[in-house]
Amino acid sequence: MKRDKVIINVGRQLGAGGRAVAKLLAEMFNARFYDKELLALAAKESGFAPEFFEKNDEHKGFFRSMLNLHSPNVFPALSEGASFFSQEGLFKFQSDAICRAADEPGSCVFVGRCADYVLRDRQDCVNIFVTATMDFRIDHVCERHQCSRDEARRIIEKGEAERASYYNYYTGKKWGAAETYHLSIDASLLGIEQTARFVADFIRYRP
Amino acid sequence: MKRDKVIINVGRQLGAGGRAVAKLLAEMFNARFYDKELLALAAKESGFAPEFFEKNDEHKGFFRSMLNLHSPNVFPALSEGASFFSQEGLFKFQSDAICRAADEPGSCVFVGRCADYVLRDRQDCVNIFVTATMDFRIDHVCERHQCSRDEARRIIEKGEAERASYYNYYTGKKWGAAETYHLSIDASLLGIEQTARFVADFIRYRP
Repeated sequence: MKRDKVIINVGRQLGAGGRAVAKLLAEMFNARFYDKELLALAAKESGFAPEFFEKNDEHKGFFRSMLNLHSPNVFPALSEGASFFSQEGLFKFQSDAICRAADEPGSCVFVGRCADYVLRDRQDCVNIFVTATMDFRIDHVCERHQCSRDEARRIIEKGEAERASYYNYYTGKKWGAAETYHLSIDASLLGIEQTARFVADFIRYRP
Repeated sequence: MKRDKVIINVGRQLGAGGRAVAKLLAEMFNARFYDKELLALAAKESGFAPEFFEKNDEHKGFFRSMLNLHSPNVFPALSEGASFFSQEGLFKFQSDAICRAADEPGSCVFVGRCADYVLRDRQDCVNIFVTATMDFRIDHVCERHQCSRDEARRIIEKGEAERASYYNYYTGKKWGAAETYHLSIDASLLGIEQTARFVADFIRYRP
């Protein structure tokens, strides 16, 4: 049974190529692939605009600061709705979307979004974390954003601080700690494709 | 050249079986194996008793507190010698022993002792970290120490806090963080032997 279906959760440092590794794993295991796709699913479910989810994606703070702009005295209705309408509410919609996607027949791959934590009670999950040297990550971010190496480093540091804070807040676990995942791998050693093949071996080997 | 010689540094959570994985890797790569052996090497080099190294092994504090027992006014000579005679001095002897062992012909495996950091400028190192679920680790520690599960948990938590503090102090890096290692693996998923075989594949695959 476990052999027939696997759920692969891929966490990643920014610029480490974790998304590319996850995409290759999805092909190898003939699995559905969820990255930004999760935001659309959650938005559809909630009735909110997808932009709400995009702006809150894997970082905390936006929603709360937006609500703070509106004093409860001025917009009491908005304030009253805040518990439903809060960032926690958006996280809940996204988690529900992850659970439903995991329940569907067949294998799937989730990138980020605390999917390892959301699906922690399932026995068919394998949790992976992809790292890389800072040079490797800067190369990737420069290419993607067409920016200087200094700017790339700033993007990485800010983006990862946000991912870590988001993950740690919602899961009570530690983003990027080896013990949080079944396997963590530095993709700069083998390169993206060979890393994906190696991770696939790990997933196939498990009992 | 790199294919002929490899240096494998194995960090590990307490009770995760990292030493057993390291031992198997040493057999597979026909490599010298250094765990407690390093303490004897460092002691021999320094002229100090091996007990000094054993008591300071991978945790900080013993040496300094011993020196504090002797007021500098009472034992000025001991105090004067402290910089040579300090815990940092012992770390230096151990690091020198690691470097010399790594320089010798043939492959080798080091368990802990910040060897990944000490040998950071070498191109022939692969840095591994072995984790396991808390249950798996408690099982191992209960068996080794013939103690209760509560006592095992306390041993694990105290021992790991000491390893982390020792590693972080001497390396400026983060013990147990995925990005500190090339590969981190949860040995409770595949078991010790299969984990060692899988890590060996990783070491062989690298360019």
